[in-house]
Amino acid sequence: MKNIAVILSGCGVKDGSEIHEATLLLLAIDKLGAKYTIFAPNDDFNVVNHYMGAETDEKRNILVESARIARGQINDLITFDATKYDALILPGGFGAAKNLCTYALDGANMEVRKDVAQAIADMHALHKPIGGLCIAPVVIAGTLSNGAKVTIGNDASTAADIEELGAVHQIAHETDVVVDKVNNVYTSPCYMLATHISQVYEGIENLVKAILDSLDK
Amino acid sequence: MKNIAVILSGCGVKDGSEIHEATLLLLAIDKLGAKYTIFAPNDDFNVVNHYMGAETDEKRNILVESARIARGQINDLITFDATKYDALILPGGFGAAKNLCTYALDGANMEVRKDVAQAIADMHALHKPIGGLCIAPVVIAGTLSNGAKVTIGNDASTAADIEELGAVHQIAHETDVVVDKVNNVYTSPCYMLATHISQVYEGIENLVKAILDSLDK
Repeated sequence: MKNIAVILSGCGVKDGSEIHEATLLLLAIDKLGAKYTIFAPNDDFNVVNHYMGAETDEKRNILVESARIARGQINDLITFDATKYDALILPGGFGAAKNLCTYALDGANMEVRKDVAQAIADMHALHKPIGGLCIAPVVIAGTLSNGAKVTIGNDASTAADIEELGAVHQIAHETDVVVDKVNNVYTSPCYMLATHISQVYEGIENLVKAILDSLDK
Repeated sequence: MKNIAVILSGCGVKDGSEIHEATLLLLAIDKLGAKYTIFAPNDDFNVVNHYMGAETDEKRNILVESARIARGQINDLITFDATKYDALILPGGFGAAKNLCTYALDGANMEVRKDVAQAIADMHALHKPIGGLCIAPVVIAGTLSNGAKVTIGNDASTAADIEELGAVHQIAHETDVVVDKVNNVYTSPCYMLATHISQVYEGIENLVKAILDSLDK
């Protein structure tokens, strides 16, 4: 059975992993006959009140909050070993842009967290598939400096930042998957474009299927 | 388009709504052509660290944390108006047993929160469908004192508590839906029995489909 590693960035669209994308990623992996192993960085982040929409003074831990989505079955990202997994996928949410890298603050001058960059670079070195949903492709673009082709949908400003990072941006529709065969990178817009949760699931299932199909070849 | 009200109890299986059940409920509602409106009680709860598994001294707000699953689109349960919705569904998670009622603490001597009991009683008075996933059927059993038939799977101790509350418990398999046609109550075991997230989705889709079919008649 194929084992897909998933990196979470917290629990909630405004300061962590987008919960629907993360959950539906687990559903797609299970439904398509593979299994998942979940990771998150062990570090603090700034909490956003999701009811009021405003940032607060509170700090929480990325790993501890991600464990909510993982139902407790989660690992510190520092223990990640690329040789053990068949693919790696990152869901979106502002956590991807704030907690996995500094994109939300620094735009194209962003830096990727060392443990996150290491996981992506190790998978890439082994030519294993790497997937990114929603805004998470910026993390991949910020790590792979060799012109990976990705999509975040059609947002012009984010697309320009991705190109400035040295990647290639391709416009895509809600449930499309952009495949970079050379770099083995798979991306889909999800909530960057989707207005309904069923569109999000469709895009994610398309992405996981494309990755699993590539592993069968 | 049918509008299904969903009551959340926080964000995380150990102290709130089970995230997979809540998210997959929204997916099933959307996929089957209905829409959802999300509610949660505006009150504090005790936080459980989902990585370590232990209760902490921290308190958070049920409505504010539920807003993470709802992507900010959520309403204070006190504003619930049963005349506006076609059905009401409660996902599981310990939040259902701890934050919506006192079952986790008091067993069959439990009390249901006033706003939660009011919402269920109002829907029942209008003979509109009420659904419960996982452990949430105890909230329904604790509210309707007229012998509603429900399932929480096959856990003997919980089943005995449900019977002591005046309801009827029916044993069910992972993806089964127990239908009480007299009371218009629909329940399914989800993570009380399921070992895989795709089983959880299957049970939830079965439940939402049964409710929507009943509304079409």
